[in-house]
Amino acid sequence: MIRIAVDAMGGDVGPAVTLPASLAFLEGHPDASVVLVGRPEVLAAHPLHARLQSHDRCQIVAASEIVTMDDPIEIALRRKKNSSMRVAMNQVKDGVAQAAVSAGNTGALMAIARYVLKTMDGIDRPAIATQLPNAAGGATTVLDLGANVDCTEDHLLQFAVMGSALVASITNNPAPSVGLLNIGEEAIKGSEVIKKAGELLRSASNSGDLNFYGNVEGNDIFKGTTDIVVCDGFVGNVALKASEGLASMIGGFIKAEFSRNIFTKLAAIVAYPVLTAFKNRVDHRRYNGAALLGLQGLVFKSHGSADAFAFERALNRAYDAARNNLLERVRERIAHAAPLLVAARVAPVTEGVAAVSSMPVDSTASTAAH
Amino acid sequence: MIRIAVDAMGGDVGPAVTLPASLAFLEGHPDASVVLVGRPEVLAAHPLHARLQSHDRCQIVAASEIVTMDDPIEIALRRKKNSSMRVAMNQVKDGVAQAAVSAGNTGALMAIARYVLKTMDGIDRPAIATQLPNAAGGATTVLDLGANVDCTEDHLLQFAVMGSALVASITNNPAPSVGLLNIGEEAIKGSEVIKKAGELLRSASNSGDLNFYGNVEGNDIFKGTTDIVVCDGFVGNVALKASEGLASMIGGFIKAEFSRNIFTKLAAIVAYPVLTAFKNRVDHRRYNGAALLGLQGLVFKSHGSADAFAFERALNRAYDAARNNLLERVRERIAHAAPLLVAARVAPVTEGVAAVSSMPVDSTASTAAH
Repeated sequence: MIRIAVDAMGGDVGPAVTLPASLAFLEGHPDASVVLVGRPEVLAAHPLHARLQSHDRCQIVAASEIVTMDDPIEIALRRKKNSSMRVAMNQVKDGVAQAAVSAGNTGALMAIARYVLKTMDGIDRPAIATQLPNAAGGATTVLDLGANVDCTEDHLLQFAVMGSALVASITNNPAPSVGLLNIGEEAIKGSEVIKKAGELLRSASNSGDLNFYGNVEGNDIFKGTTDIVVCDGFVGNVALKASEGLASMIGGFIKAEFSRNIFTKLAAIVAYPVLTAFKNRVDHRRYNGAALLGLQGLVFKSHGSADAFAFERALNRAYDAARNNLLERVRERIAHAAPLLVAARVAPVTEGVAAVSSMPVDSTASTAAH
Repeated sequence: MIRIAVDAMGGDVGPAVTLPASLAFLEGHPDASVVLVGRPEVLAAHPLHARLQSHDRCQIVAASEIVTMDDPIEIALRRKKNSSMRVAMNQVKDGVAQAAVSAGNTGALMAIARYVLKTMDGIDRPAIATQLPNAAGGATTVLDLGANVDCTEDHLLQFAVMGSALVASITNNPAPSVGLLNIGEEAIKGSEVIKKAGELLRSASNSGDLNFYGNVEGNDIFKGTTDIVVCDGFVGNVALKASEGLASMIGGFIKAEFSRNIFTKLAAIVAYPVLTAFKNRVDHRRYNGAALLGLQGLVFKSHGSADAFAFERALNRAYDAARNNLLERVRERIAHAAPLLVAARVAPVTEGVAAVSSMPVDSTASTAAH
């Protein structure tokens, strides 16, 4: 039995999304159970509450507070110790659940996860990893997506190792390929950190810790050149959000062109099945559920604006990760790569070391190079 | 008369693109003339050569060498002193032409432009600026797109000032809005450099040097939240290429869905006018022609894979910039903002100063924080 702790209050919507998604998830997974964490009076007001309360694979756990989408990290972490997010995380820490899922405030979720679960040995900073669809018909796993700005090469190696464990656990491909996100122009190729990271990743590839492809560029994410793309959180976040913005603009243009006049509207009716197939293919909801990697427990982040379909996908991801022992796989790979990670730390770059386990998520800058 | 120097050999294709584009450009602009620079025997082999040679607004200038797409900067700069790229640039330096356009190797173009034309007073590093379509129906100007990695806040301010001059010269909006590209999560908001750049941009806004909107995120580029988005070259390059990759993937999916079977192919015929209108709307060729800003001369970079339609757009942009006195506008704005730029330089951040006028395009890292 895989048990998932659900922050039922998290996200822009809360129980109106998390409750139907949890019920659908339970129906789709006969060997799964759910711990719903939230304010009892709010949960009780939802029409599905009675059904979930009497469900033999659902348990409801009370939490008196809610972390809002714009709560500063300090408030979420220090003042709201009985938040649904925190109590859900405690379920994982106490071994009651194998994974926690929340659609709440990312910064708060990362900080609480770090505080409650702690990072794994050998990991300075947890990373956020998500999947994006690619033209090769699969998905590209990209990390980090915003938990860390100003990464050192050491961090990028950790991301590569953790990303490999994630993809290996989902796809059963034991050696997924890793690309290092860089820019393409000759001689203006990347910063010093990226250059050093490239060397580290090559060493890791030579010692069998990962399957390093080499540098990739922004377009390779959607081409599907590699299974995994590694980058610092600032770059990853911008690339992800720019892509969301572009997809939304293109969707809007398609809609506008088909609604222009009576003829285009008729064309839309004829093209409807094709447009629907296309829409399903690029539906970002299918890719909902980012993994917080590097913690001593599984945590998945749903998009704040997820609907029930999207939130259920995040629950599925958490379930798959727990079932495929993602935690153990990450631990093993990190342990195996430990000599490289240690070597990276005794190298001249020291800022990364100073940042170890400092709380909350910090913004230690990259090294000055030349 | 506006005269444009064209590197006729540059790009993946060379004269087969640059010659038809130049002719079309001349036909569309009765007050423009063109200086075509290239290897005489190669140009002579093109069917349009005779027409261009006898054109009263076209002059052909010989250059014996070609900078290839993968020539290292050193080779392009030091060994190929008679390249078509370099000779085209010399036309601008010598005052023969008001702008140069090349579809060649970006790194080489930037290095040659810096070497031949020099940077303006007050500018440490030139930037590459391009326009991207946005959902608001206009275009967002984004810079830098890859000329500079590891920027300081001082550089970001320079980019903002130069970008404002560019947009003001194209749109006749004297105070285009500027957004600073950042990531959205509370407390993990950006690096130290971004935070400092935000302060600098606010000061510049208060002193009337630019119209600073505040931080924006990746999706704001395509939303059209601001007229200009400023970022370091690494981030800008990744965002641009990721967007290109996504657009290409979506285009491929649409094509695949409409070619699936006889019914979807019929739907494609019915929807053809709508699909064509949509395609025109997102046609990246319309946005071809990036400006190299901060040099003592106008230089525009065409995409290497541009076709004649796209290359003509780049020529149009160069023409518009020359006609609207972009150079003088950038110079004036930089001069006006000089006190702020000087103030930024005497601030603790010193790496930016060390980089002034170093050649070729360097990768001086950002400052270590804490």
